[in-house]
Amino acid sequence: MSSLTLYSDPLLGPKATQLLRDATAEHRLITPTFAASSVLAQPAADPAFEEAEIAFGQPHLENIYTAKKLRWIHISSAGFTRYDTPEFRAYAENQGLIVTNSSTVYSRACAEHVFSFMLAQSRLLPQALASHAENGSEEWSYLRSGCKCLFGQNVVILGYGAIASELVKLLAPFEMNITAMRRTPRGNEGFPVVTEETLPFALADADHVINILPENAASRGFVNAALLSHFKTGAVFHNIGRGATVNQQDLADALHSGKLAAAWLDVTDPEPLPADHPLRHAPNCHITPHIAGGHAAEDEALVRHFLTNLHRYLAGVPLLDRLF
Amino acid sequence: MSSLTLYSDPLLGPKATQLLRDATAEHRLITPTFAASSVLAQPAADPAFEEAEIAFGQPHLENIYTAKKLRWIHISSAGFTRYDTPEFRAYAENQGLIVTNSSTVYSRACAEHVFSFMLAQSRLLPQALASHAENGSEEWSYLRSGCKCLFGQNVVILGYGAIASELVKLLAPFEMNITAMRRTPRGNEGFPVVTEETLPFALADADHVINILPENAASRGFVNAALLSHFKTGAVFHNIGRGATVNQQDLADALHSGKLAAAWLDVTDPEPLPADHPLRHAPNCHITPHIAGGHAAEDEALVRHFLTNLHRYLAGVPLLDRLF
Repeated sequence: MSSLTLYSDPLLGPKATQLLRDATAEHRLITPTFAASSVLAQPAADPAFEEAEIAFGQPHLENIYTAKKLRWIHISSAGFTRYDTPEFRAYAENQGLIVTNSSTVYSRACAEHVFSFMLAQSRLLPQALASHAENGSEEWSYLRSGCKCLFGQNVVILGYGAIASELVKLLAPFEMNITAMRRTPRGNEGFPVVTEETLPFALADADHVINILPENAASRGFVNAALLSHFKTGAVFHNIGRGATVNQQDLADALHSGKLAAAWLDVTDPEPLPADHPLRHAPNCHITPHIAGGHAAEDEALVRHFLTNLHRYLAGVPLLDRLF
Repeated sequence: MSSLTLYSDPLLGPKATQLLRDATAEHRLITPTFAASSVLAQPAADPAFEEAEIAFGQPHLENIYTAKKLRWIHISSAGFTRYDTPEFRAYAENQGLIVTNSSTVYSRACAEHVFSFMLAQSRLLPQALASHAENGSEEWSYLRSGCKCLFGQNVVILGYGAIASELVKLLAPFEMNITAMRRTPRGNEGFPVVTEETLPFALADADHVINILPENAASRGFVNAALLSHFKTGAVFHNIGRGATVNQQDLADALHSGKLAAAWLDVTDPEPLPADHPLRHAPNCHITPHIAGGHAAEDEALVRHFLTNLHRYLAGVPLLDRLF
């Protein structure tokens, strides 16, 4: 096996760094001159990049376009907005450049995160944890009878990829009625799949709507006043995809009008929201700061996933989480 | 079929009342002189009770002991502390008195409630929902890397009945390592079952300990300093059983010392806790006001469950949720 030049820019802890160094000892490993602030952040453009045959991280497009030896990019996140343009897809196809991402690393955590949203809403945790209500009191009766079981409720998932597929597995014993929107239904999903055209019919009955759409030109602002008008009154909206796929003002309006009973957001536009942003003051709007993919030793899992793909690459086996 | 005299004391809404009246039209239905404040509360002792052959609700022990026609009591809650005494069990056995409860009505909601606790803790919701942290900041890194997946964690369940059995079903796709403590292991549970003697070994590895013990003379104060000393440092304790099965001061101490990372309680002793109670100010102590069994139209589900058992009783079929 010949030695390759690997470029790695994610900010890794000592254990993950050692793991990467040990496993790539027979290759040349180059790291950026200026470190990124996190595994998800993009470091500055880097002249060292032009030697790279394989890039792991969040490489700059301007670096990629001039790196003529580059064969494969493994993106260190599940989101890949900056690479998801017709221009870049065409470039990758012309150059035979393979692009994979790390969705497997984050899909379980993201699925558990949105599940925590659904159950917290269903059991009224924000209100109940703040209550000292006495058994039998009016406040207590309100909480107790307002609590729901997920069992039997209807859920619509916007965007059917690795996270949705993980979520569906976790939801199985809750016996919810699941519908997903997918660009190209395959018929083997095991539950009803709708397209953008037939989505309104599914939304009309949905108790929970879960947005996991990636951000690209087609999805930007997808959840807007027009789409929200098809939601059932009292529905709950969740976003663990990308903030920009939702019109933030329209979402705030739907909370104020009571169209939505609540929103649970791990992503917003921008992040974090300024203190005076309408969503900060919208009723029943619950926001976590883009941590859905987080889990202990995330950087080690990220490196292990890259190394698995590296072994597959060297062995000529199809790569995991291939985007294009 | 001969007409029976049924006594019903739960406070029911109009729909549940109508459901009960319609389905028992051929029997004599007597209700208490003084209504209870909720489906879970015990009304005052009632002279009308002595005619009852079947009692649905929370009948007084003094009423029961003088009601010579009584054949079956269907308790309108999952808890049955006041009936769980050697004296009452002996009386019921001598009189051939059947006692059932309503655990089936509450088990799914209770299981989903404690599941919401486990996921809220795992995804750090109390901290994350209060944070406006910027991606890459120190606070963000703390939250993001502190988040966990339930996947692969160890859970110990104290008390294996209807709720635990429901919880285990829901947990299946999360692939946690489940151990339960049960008075009499049956060997068909599908996962390791320990007794009180071998519990400490299981506790030593448990990330989540879930208390669903009913309250009786044997279980009162079961979770105390001695038992807590066997917990893994950083474990999370949940209580959806009865408050009195836990020594409240010992629990507060375990939170203050850091032995426990957090406690999630739907039940306390007393309820609600006074404002100056140690658990109100213990770190990471999250309390909901005894609503775990709550769900929409709870009273209708309660009546339907009683009616199912009434049909079984009249048909001579073994009753559901039979206690003794």
